[in-house]
Amino acid sequence: MAILISANAGWDRQLWVDKIAELDPARDVIADDASPRLGEVRYALVWKAPQVLLGRLPKLDVIFNLGAGVDAILADTTIPPHIPIVRIVDDNLTHRMSEWIALQVLIHHRQTLVYQERQRAGIWEDQPGQPAAAHVTVGIMGLGELGRDAARVLAALGFRLVGWSRTRREVPGVTTFAGDSGLDAFLAETDILVCLLPLTPETTGILDRRLFSKLKRGGPLGGPFLVNAGRGLEQKEADILAALADGTLRGASLDVFEEEPLPASSPLWRHPRVIVTPHNAADSEPDSLTRYILAQIAAHEAGKPLQNVVDRKRGY
Amino acid sequence: MAILISANAGWDRQLWVDKIAELDPARDVIADDASPRLGEVRYALVWKAPQVLLGRLPKLDVIFNLGAGVDAILADTTIPPHIPIVRIVDDNLTHRMSEWIALQVLIHHRQTLVYQERQRAGIWEDQPGQPAAAHVTVGIMGLGELGRDAARVLAALGFRLVGWSRTRREVPGVTTFAGDSGLDAFLAETDILVCLLPLTPETTGILDRRLFSKLKRGGPLGGPFLVNAGRGLEQKEADILAALADGTLRGASLDVFEEEPLPASSPLWRHPRVIVTPHNAADSEPDSLTRYILAQIAAHEAGKPLQNVVDRKRGY
Repeated sequence: MAILISANAGWDRQLWVDKIAELDPARDVIADDASPRLGEVRYALVWKAPQVLLGRLPKLDVIFNLGAGVDAILADTTIPPHIPIVRIVDDNLTHRMSEWIALQVLIHHRQTLVYQERQRAGIWEDQPGQPAAAHVTVGIMGLGELGRDAARVLAALGFRLVGWSRTRREVPGVTTFAGDSGLDAFLAETDILVCLLPLTPETTGILDRRLFSKLKRGGPLGGPFLVNAGRGLEQKEADILAALADGTLRGASLDVFEEEPLPASSPLWRHPRVIVTPHNAADSEPDSLTRYILAQIAAHEAGKPLQNVVDRKRGY
Repeated sequence: MAILISANAGWDRQLWVDKIAELDPARDVIADDASPRLGEVRYALVWKAPQVLLGRLPKLDVIFNLGAGVDAILADTTIPPHIPIVRIVDDNLTHRMSEWIALQVLIHHRQTLVYQERQRAGIWEDQPGQPAAAHVTVGIMGLGELGRDAARVLAALGFRLVGWSRTRREVPGVTTFAGDSGLDAFLAETDILVCLLPLTPETTGILDRRLFSKLKRGGPLGGPFLVNAGRGLEQKEADILAALADGTLRGASLDVFEEEPLPASSPLWRHPRVIVTPHNAADSEPDSLTRYILAQIAAHEAGKPLQNVVDRKRGY
């Protein structure tokens, strides 16, 4: 019944080992990908684990993926397809993401980068024509748990909301669109585009020049903004830079990138109308996530169904 | 029945003249403080109007103050004390203020100034230990219409809330404290202090070193933050700078200043942990405020009571 904790370099496994030891001291935890005891692993708690590792665990029963994005695991073809993959999207992670989304939307809505530039220059000057949130439309792509919670927070701030998803979803207070046929109408209403889509073949590269050119023109903010907290491979960074240069986009907040860490050579780092954060929009606390995982393991061992199991065909 | 529109320099009266002409074309509007027709003025719509002007209007019936702060009018001793002063705090102004408060609280909560500095240096590095909003307490000073709406929005973002006011107020979801006796207990719980107090003799200079030293130490953000959208004379800027220098405060967002515009010589302009905005937190749209004023005038002329009349003894 051992739990294996596996992750790519630069990620602190010990935090999680300690937290499980605190919350469930009887549980056997392995934190070494080369342990001689891998054959005993029944549960794997992973964040971008090394390829091929999970396929080599004969007693593996459930994979818990730390975070909402499971594209890295689904790309590992050595994992037997019958093993359930649980996406860990607990309230803590969801609320963190909503904090980041609200922050980025407000930064662009209230022209914060413009005022920060003025501040550095010592210029006291109001920018006329600041619209109210009620006159600005935020368009949310992806209406799963994360998208719906972001909508709840943005609605409290007074923004007008539209939403888009692959299949139609009803979300209170949000005008929703769906599928390829609904995308253009959704984009045409959107002043600030928030992407929370999972990475699938259909969403790879979706945030490109063509899409940006369909966002609302002549809106109250003087041009559309992009906020991406989905996955880096959904965006074409060359297109973002070109769209910023010619006014197709007025600004952007990006937490994810085609290559992470974002290479030092990327012009995004120093672009005056871009906010870069190091893929930490939904940084979660080990305490909250560990409780969630241990509760799921206990339920599973009691014969109850797992929650948030990934549909491998859909890809999320 | 003329309306006088009066304001200090640098404020665009014509916007308001045009808006009244659009919404109530029959209404006589005077936009010149030296007009020979001042004797006809029944309503004055003012923003920091020149001293003595309002005391010289023989038929003046109601003063409408654009914005929540009435300290400038109350300081004008030439205004007969029986003339009602209406504070214009409509939903538009209130929601603007809540947008700004939420933005500033999130900027400090999510360590945005730290990440922006890293971005400028091209550094991809997560700051460990980011707390969830639920583990951060925002303390709101002033629980009138503005404070209560800020509490609503901050609660939706998940922050823990405490509040303080001169006399005890009940606010849903907020632990409230009142008066001199409740101040220390309120401050001891507060990680991010939001000031929305009216300027009165009691609140002048209230945001000083002594108060900052009573804020929560050892909180999850590594030290307390100040967010002031009340009035500049409530804060002692030399104390803010000293508190930032010795760690008593970790950062600040200021929309108001002892002297406005903030003098070019102020070190606040270039302080790396301070956000300066040019007294525009609650910038309002003339459309919404003009409708509010015209509706109040119509009600008044129909013999109904005015709303949001200032209590001159309390000072707000």
